[in-house]
Amino acid sequence: MYTVTVRDHFMIAHSFKGEAFGPAQRLHGATYVVDLEFRRAGLDANGMVVDIGRAGEVLRAVVLGLSYRNLDEEPAFAGRNTTTEFLARVVFDRIVEAIGRDELGAGARAVESLRVTLHESHVAAASFEGRVSAAP
Amino acid sequence: MYTVTVRDHFMIAHSFKGEAFGPAQRLHGATYVVDLEFRRAGLDANGMVVDIGRAGEVLRAVVLGLSYRNLDEEPAFAGRNTTTEFLARVVFDRIVEAIGRDELGAGARAVESLRVTLHESHVAAASFEGRVSAAP
Amino acid sequence: MYTVTVRDHFMIAHSFKGEAFGPAQRLHGATYVVDLEFRRAGLDANGMVVDIGRAGEVLRAVVLGLSYRNLDEEPAFAGRNTTTEFLARVVFDRIVEAIGRDELGAGARAVESLRVTLHESHVAAASFEGRVSAAP
Amino acid sequence: MYTVTVRDHFMIAHSFKGEAFGPAQRLHGATYVVDLEFRRAGLDANGMVVDIGRAGEVLRAVVLGLSYRNLDEEPAFAGRNTTTEFLARVVFDRIVEAIGRDELGAGARAVESLRVTLHESHVAAASFEGRVSAAP
Amino acid sequence: MYTVTVRDHFMIAHSFKGEAFGPAQRLHGATYVVDLEFRRAGLDANGMVVDIGRAGEVLRAVVLGLSYRNLDEEPAFAGRNTTTEFLARVVFDRIVEAIGRDELGAGARAVESLRVTLHESHVAAASFEGRVSAAP
Amino acid sequence: MYTVTVRDHFMIAHSFKGEAFGPAQRLHGATYVVDLEFRRAGLDANGMVVDIGRAGEVLRAVVLGLSYRNLDEEPAFAGRNTTTEFLARVVFDRIVEAIGRDELGAGARAVESLRVTLHESHVAAASFEGRVSAAP
Repeated sequence: MYTVTVRDHFMIAHSFKGEAFGPAQRLHGATYVVDLEFRRAGLDANGMVVDIGRAGEVLRAVVLGLSYRNLDEEPAFAGRNTTTEFLARVVFDRIVEAIGRDELGAGARAVESLRVTLHESHVAAASFEGRVSAAP
Repeated sequence: MYTVTVRDHFMIAHSFKGEAFGPAQRLHGATYVVDLEFRRAGLDANGMVVDIGRAGEVLRAVVLGLSYRNLDEEPAFAGRNTTTEFLARVVFDRIVEAIGRDELGAGARAVESLRVTLHESHVAAASFEGRVSAAP
Repeated sequence: MYTVTVRDHFMIAHSFKGEAFGPAQRLHGATYVVDLEFRRAGLDANGMVVDIGRAGEVLRAVVLGLSYRNLDEEPAFAGRNTTTEFLARVVFDRIVEAIGRDELGAGARAVESLRVTLHESHVAAASFEGRVSAAP
Repeated sequence: MYTVTVRDHFMIAHSFKGEAFGPAQRLHGATYVVDLEFRRAGLDANGMVVDIGRAGEVLRAVVLGLSYRNLDEEPAFAGRNTTTEFLARVVFDRIVEAIGRDELGAGARAVESLRVTLHESHVAAASFEGRVSAAP
Repeated sequence: MYTVTVRDHFMIAHSFKGEAFGPAQRLHGATYVVDLEFRRAGLDANGMVVDIGRAGEVLRAVVLGLSYRNLDEEPAFAGRNTTTEFLARVVFDRIVEAIGRDELGAGARAVESLRVTLHESHVAAASFEGRVSAAP
Repeated sequence: MYTVTVRDHFMIAHSFKGEAFGPAQRLHGATYVVDLEFRRAGLDANGMVVDIGRAGEVLRAVVLGLSYRNLDEEPAFAGRNTTTEFLARVVFDRIVEAIGRDELGAGARAVESLRVTLHESHVAAASFEGRVSAAP
């Protein structure tokens, strides 16, 4: 199995609902440093998993769609707690959609699975990994 | 698969038995930076893998049980080489026990597997991963 | 010159006023990983710059006073842009005040200067450094 | 599953063939920081996955065989794009060969799989993982 | 003293002349991860050291002027060893020139000094720091 | 001012005397990741601050002189608390001595000052910096 990983970040405000969250029920925010890993069994004719330049552009587009926002006011997340693990899944789904629209090139359809990791501090992170074909 | 990871550390003295260890047969020590990863297929009603606050507290309790000790004198490790990989398993077993005692909340019983990584320097690390149900 | 550095973090929401900030004029947020460096010419009788345990506790108290808040609503910051460099100075001032109240021990009055660095992502940081005696 | 990981690095020049590479078609270079992970189900009699000292030496030998070279002129890579993912496989194959020659000790034959990760910058990495027995 | 730091990277090929360089006399290459630190005594009316968005753009322009090149063939470096410390100075000079051309905004002329650090691997780095007014 | 920094590490056991140390009065240990920074105003004829290969060898020799030891039993440290800041000074002094013995080459006598930083965990570090000529 080969992988390629690219990194970017986004900065948001949000709050959580539920006593389990303690002080994080107040409006606060986070920087998420995102690692996006593409996985496939073999390399393409160029010797690549994906075009790493395009991969970076697609990730940039996804993080720009989340950046500098108060997630509590985003209709897409109404009624949801935008935890780190939930947001890892959001990034995963949006990258899968971009692959489906061939934004990473037709060759990227050979990518079998993705792992999206969001680092929220130097001591905490969350991730979602799954097959590309299994996405909604 | 979703994951959440929390980080802490502990500092111990120990020595190793066996020629393979070379100068590490002498009494020395290490700082272990610990990454504890929880894995499960879905999120709970709050949108979480585990309560990250409780996860940090449980990891803190486990590292405090190892910190500032000479492991050569710990009855629990008598006759064993407390290598980095061995200690990763020790941390794994103690976290599984804490889950069994519901210290992470009843919901944490949905956690399927853990990965415990111990970084012993900027150039070396070891880990143990396994299913929660498979623990002793 | 000797130094000791301790690390902690806090997570906040805020927005900026001024066209220079572009999309950061919207309500968003950040994780700040804080490095607090204490500097003095010599060591105390214990061989320390400061009691590192107390240093960590004092830093923890300061970050808890900022954590999980919307800084736009904090009276202390009214009319100010809470940029990373501005917040580095806020942390500096609060640590100097704690030293003045002997929360780090009487010996900590020998600390000559501090450097406070706030990392806002994997690609950006800001800091404030100054003499302890020169603080307001 | 237990793992042990050791880190080293190498610095090379190369260029890529194919429009997908854009400016990287020009002769340029890279530092690759290499993480080599060994995996096996149990520990040996010493409590180890592999002898970590030997593991470091074997990795050092492999990176020295690549270091300070223009990969465009290496016969072994003629007609190939030496992408990060391709080079991760090269390191994997050479470590598997070293295991086959017992350079890591006879016990290392119990290693089931390896993961080789090459970090090419603070924002990009690639890896190859596979079973030791499946190598050419 | 306040600082703001931004990070980017570039990848180049080069070789060194002189026996002191050993195998690095052969054509090879490097990834340089660049930290650019701006320093000034006070903040501007926005509460900033420099406009961090513009700072990132200016650094990007400078690294693009070096990226994906064989430095042995760059007329600007003829007869020079492009060591990490030498290249730190090159980046410093080019940033000072950009400040002089007001590319960072007129306010950036209040920046007193810069520190440019180039990380060439996980175990080696070099830097140049100096006053902006003292640049050639 | 130019700098070059090299990194290595050592692993030791020790204990501290004094109530201020709390549980660290027990025998324990640490991994110290060492950053050694050399500083000088100009570059030598090769374009270097110091020969980075030799710098790494000299640092390796110093860390080997400390590695895999119980510092409580080292005559050189009798009656002293081997805190992180104290050990930073020890490494500083030993590097200055190596420069005096020309182990870094005669050119290294132009190095004006050093900064030695010891990272004891992901959340704590200490350093000593001073002029080479001011060393004992």
